[in-house]
Amino acid sequence: MPNLTIVVDCNDPNYAREICDALRLFPHVTAVLPDHPAAGRAEYASCWFPDPQLLARSPGLKLIQAASAGVDHLPESVFASQVPLCRVVDEDFRHGMFEYALWGVLWFQRHFDRALAHQRERVWQAYPQRAAADFRVGVMGLGEIGGYIATRLAGLGYRVSGWARSEKRLAGVHCYHGDAQAAGFLGELDALINVLPLTEQTRGILARPLLDQLPEGAVLINCGRGEHMVNHDVLQALDSGRLAGALLDVFPVEPLPDADPLWSHPRVVITPHIASIAPAQVIARQLLENIQRQQQALPLKNLVDKQMGY
Amino acid sequence: MPNLTIVVDCNDPNYAREICDALRLFPHVTAVLPDHPAAGRAEYASCWFPDPQLLARSPGLKLIQAASAGVDHLPESVFASQVPLCRVVDEDFRHGMFEYALWGVLWFQRHFDRALAHQRERVWQAYPQRAAADFRVGVMGLGEIGGYIATRLAGLGYRVSGWARSEKRLAGVHCYHGDAQAAGFLGELDALINVLPLTEQTRGILARPLLDQLPEGAVLINCGRGEHMVNHDVLQALDSGRLAGALLDVFPVEPLPDADPLWSHPRVVITPHIASIAPAQVIARQLLENIQRQQQALPLKNLVDKQMGY
Repeated sequence: MPNLTIVVDCNDPNYAREICDALRLFPHVTAVLPDHPAAGRAEYASCWFPDPQLLARSPGLKLIQAASAGVDHLPESVFASQVPLCRVVDEDFRHGMFEYALWGVLWFQRHFDRALAHQRERVWQAYPQRAAADFRVGVMGLGEIGGYIATRLAGLGYRVSGWARSEKRLAGVHCYHGDAQAAGFLGELDALINVLPLTEQTRGILARPLLDQLPEGAVLINCGRGEHMVNHDVLQALDSGRLAGALLDVFPVEPLPDADPLWSHPRVVITPHIASIAPAQVIARQLLENIQRQQQALPLKNLVDKQMGY
Repeated sequence: MPNLTIVVDCNDPNYAREICDALRLFPHVTAVLPDHPAAGRAEYASCWFPDPQLLARSPGLKLIQAASAGVDHLPESVFASQVPLCRVVDEDFRHGMFEYALWGVLWFQRHFDRALAHQRERVWQAYPQRAAADFRVGVMGLGEIGGYIATRLAGLGYRVSGWARSEKRLAGVHCYHGDAQAAGFLGELDALINVLPLTEQTRGILARPLLDQLPEGAVLINCGRGEHMVNHDVLQALDSGRLAGALLDVFPVEPLPDADPLWSHPRVVITPHIASIAPAQVIARQLLENIQRQQQALPLKNLVDKQMGY
């Protein structure tokens, strides 16, 4: 096998170093950061919020990997190019997303939000228990991740529905699809979990027109993308009581700015984009597997449809 | 079927009323509170922290039901009598206990405790994700409830072990038993969940000798009984770093007194004895079923072994 030169272009230096280290465990691999002289002749790239000049700086790229499930952080030039783009999807990653969503469901369903607020005031007050079978959870986005979240939640006894652009079938999940069925889906939820991909169609979807279709007192769990959300509308829905609470992992600007009113809203939980993180070893393994598949002219795994944007 | 007189003796008036209402939906049932004249000729009792004079006030009792899984709140005279004592165990009840324990596991495993502390300071700081397979959860008590919690946690990918007084076998759970194996069980845990029954052997078990056997930085989830716990020792273990955190649902004195330092400990979550609550309909259904079984001389369901105390 000839030597493989891989550029790791990642806006978090620690994560970049971890991915480089994981790639270097494979034979024949030269893994470098973008400022290394060898980056100019790299044939492969692993990226997380990369330099928009990625393709200009490494013009010989034959395969680009987004080190994540979402690919919206890749520059427009990558989508315009002929270079195949892959994303990372793995069992641990989607299980991590499920754990995050599940924690949020339990937080609201079992009134832990109130218990912690009461604890601060030393108030001892029980709330009636709400059974999982009576808690209606809706998952927006039913791909690799959303489908997994929805079916696992159904396995825990929740009343689960899901919505996606196109028709889906999932065991134990009432599936809706398309714009026409969105109102039916949203109108009967206690908790809405967003894991849609970010595309031009979904940007800003978590805004007033959608939120107004939720029942009074529903809760929102957003572990999709920050750009799905119109912060002002979410805050207004919280203050009007339309939303009883929100668990938010992603924000239009990250880190969430110091002055953002979401930080201190009493019914909002903020987490720092940690719903799930693909381990560097998984990123490295999936890239190497796809390089081998490309060399053998086999179909690539987790190939992005650039038209669809995911 | 002759008329059945049932006394509902319960220290929470709302809960008592709910149970009475649920019992009255059955035919031939007269359900009364202890101060009603008919209580003196009651043949059946449904109890939750009842009057210690229960048997003196209703001398004709033929069957007593504790409206809960634990029976330690029943007076000594009930254990000394020949009247059969049953407890309530049902699928929803144990699932509720599982949900509670699971929320606590996720809270610590996925660093939500830190995220909420950071949110108060507007600090955006991610922590590495810890996979379920690397998180070692131990369940103390492997009866109807503990066995269910342990096997369901194993089904979610956790590394689960369990400990009970006598030998048990559970799918996917490494089972320890007896005093001799307690150290091996405790020595390798990230999270300890207590759901033991309260007996003379288990009273005060969550104290320094046991806590000292946990690895540095383990966490404690107590949804057994408050009397399992020596508050002072738990606080000391939290302050020494032996315990990284605790989720506590039950306390030696309930409601937890205002002055108790647990209320304000930064690494303790207090909930007001809500890990799981048996619905009044389930209590009523299980009592009526056992009355029928007793009349037909069939074995009673969920009969308590008074010697064992559970």
